[in-house]
Amino acid sequence: MRALVIDDGKLRVEERPTPTPEADQVLVDVASAGLNRADTMQARGLYPAPPGWPPDVPGLEFAGTVAATGRGVKALNEGDRVLGIVGGGAHATHLITKEDLCSRLSDELDMVAAGGIPEAFITAHDALVTQGDLRPGQRVLIHGVGSGVGTAAVQVARLLGATTVGTSRTEAKLLKAEELGLDQGVLASESMADEIGEVDVVIDLIGGDYLATDVEVCRVRGRIVIVGLLAGARTTLNLAAVLSKRLTIRGTTLRARPDYEKALAARAFEREVLPSLQHGDTQVVVDNVFMLDDAAAAYEYMLSNEGYGKTIIDCRGGLGRTAE
Amino acid sequence: MRALVIDDGKLRVEERPTPTPEADQVLVDVASAGLNRADTMQARGLYPAPPGWPPDVPGLEFAGTVAATGRGVKALNEGDRVLGIVGGGAHATHLITKEDLCSRLSDELDMVAAGGIPEAFITAHDALVTQGDLRPGQRVLIHGVGSGVGTAAVQVARLLGATTVGTSRTEAKLLKAEELGLDQGVLASESMADEIGEVDVVIDLIGGDYLATDVEVCRVRGRIVIVGLLAGARTTLNLAAVLSKRLTIRGTTLRARPDYEKALAARAFEREVLPSLQHGDTQVVVDNVFMLDDAAAAYEYMLSNEGYGKTIIDCRGGLGRTAE
Repeated sequence: MRALVIDDGKLRVEERPTPTPEADQVLVDVASAGLNRADTMQARGLYPAPPGWPPDVPGLEFAGTVAATGRGVKALNEGDRVLGIVGGGAHATHLITKEDLCSRLSDELDMVAAGGIPEAFITAHDALVTQGDLRPGQRVLIHGVGSGVGTAAVQVARLLGATTVGTSRTEAKLLKAEELGLDQGVLASESMADEIGEVDVVIDLIGGDYLATDVEVCRVRGRIVIVGLLAGARTTLNLAAVLSKRLTIRGTTLRARPDYEKALAARAFEREVLPSLQHGDTQVVVDNVFMLDDAAAAYEYMLSNEGYGKTIIDCRGGLGRTAE
Repeated sequence: MRALVIDDGKLRVEERPTPTPEADQVLVDVASAGLNRADTMQARGLYPAPPGWPPDVPGLEFAGTVAATGRGVKALNEGDRVLGIVGGGAHATHLITKEDLCSRLSDELDMVAAGGIPEAFITAHDALVTQGDLRPGQRVLIHGVGSGVGTAAVQVARLLGATTVGTSRTEAKLLKAEELGLDQGVLASESMADEIGEVDVVIDLIGGDYLATDVEVCRVRGRIVIVGLLAGARTTLNLAAVLSKRLTIRGTTLRARPDYEKALAARAFEREVLPSLQHGDTQVVVDNVFMLDDAAAAYEYMLSNEGYGKTIIDCRGGLGRTAE
């Protein structure tokens, strides 16, 4: 197999022996794997892999085909098309994961795009529903609406019968998000609270001083789910508003969760989101596809913050193939 | 009836016509009523009464006897002993409230002490269980452990099978709280986090910079419930820790809740806490009892922060009676 390896802050593709699945594990022939900010932090040595996952091969999500199954694997067979989140190792031609972390796919899905589904859609569904308790008819604010998670959250919220307002620093991303079903786009600024109006739930991929806006726009019993910290980790908090409006502020991340919690999030996603992806009502927004051999360029590109939707690594075998 | 009236920042006891209960309401002959910080803020003009409650008579909790019932009242009869939380009006000899906000009492409870039960114990139970999801075997930190809510929270947490660590700025309050069952007392200081160790839930009656300690001591998936803001409303927050530990920070207050939510909290308290109060396994800690005519002195006393447990107003009729 071939894997993208982090070596002292540098990325290179390396030949490694293809592993054999142990009990409850499957070997996946990876078709594609989304790129996430956590990967770029891991590559820079700022975010060690969670325990039990490859320490030097990044990649937190995948789509591919089951190539071999370990003892005790019941629901999956060789040749099954699957996708899922993992704690690392997906930026490679082959990946060992657990059966419980895989969701089976129908044949309709494009397998290159599918590698960008798991992190964005499982995170969005988990943040909106499991963490944010979003209900039909409620209004949700999505900061960073042009990101992978943001474009997924717009669609999942609509699927749930909620209304969406999204922010971005780029007008063009707002216009594209409106094509996806975003009800109201707001250009990010210090005074954006007035334009946003009142909301029940906030999905905040930006953090930092955006939290002050979140607290301001939340209705009584509002829920603020912090998913990312692009604008920084330290901020001030108005506890009087948190108390009088009885707000909930919750931090969330999939990567650090133990596997049984990742599996729980995957089951909820399978039940409530995957059918709509398979029917095509909901779609992963693909920004850019890089070949595994060009993965280092994908990591550079993500840091430019210019992407809209998911950056995906095409991991299908051969050297020198070009992206579709 | 006689009522404590707020008049331009001053408190005085005034004769008023005794009201008649309307549909679903009861008239209560008030035996006693706890004093809360929200009352002292209301008296200073800083915290208007919630809608639907007397604007100028404070008092958020009571114990007493049903004196009359309105149309549609089903479970209560004249002469029943009751206690409950209200949105105001309890610092008076008589009070109109709703049947749903009353909990019936057995004959064993001392009716002067009982007026200090509802806010402290309903708040503590709601914060620990409903907001904080405290489970048996978990460890809970209680800041301001010598307060009415603090002394109730120590006992309710023990009742639930949890372990308690409490902070106070006064060594003597910690020693008294240990007599109540507090497992570990910690003198409040800037470096208290080390001494506290790890906890699953925080009940924070202090706010301000205590939040930094709360975030530091919480385990993964910890819950921080902000109940009071004695140390101030503005603070800084380490969002990176909130995200990586997947913490929940939640503000709570009973006073601002609509009546149906107050009634829900009262039902949970009746089921899980009241039996233990009636058996005497759990007790309200009475710091001081003031007669209704001396209520202004009680308000002064509370601001000294020297109390341990509840300050209670004895509202039983006659002028010139002395406290028991």
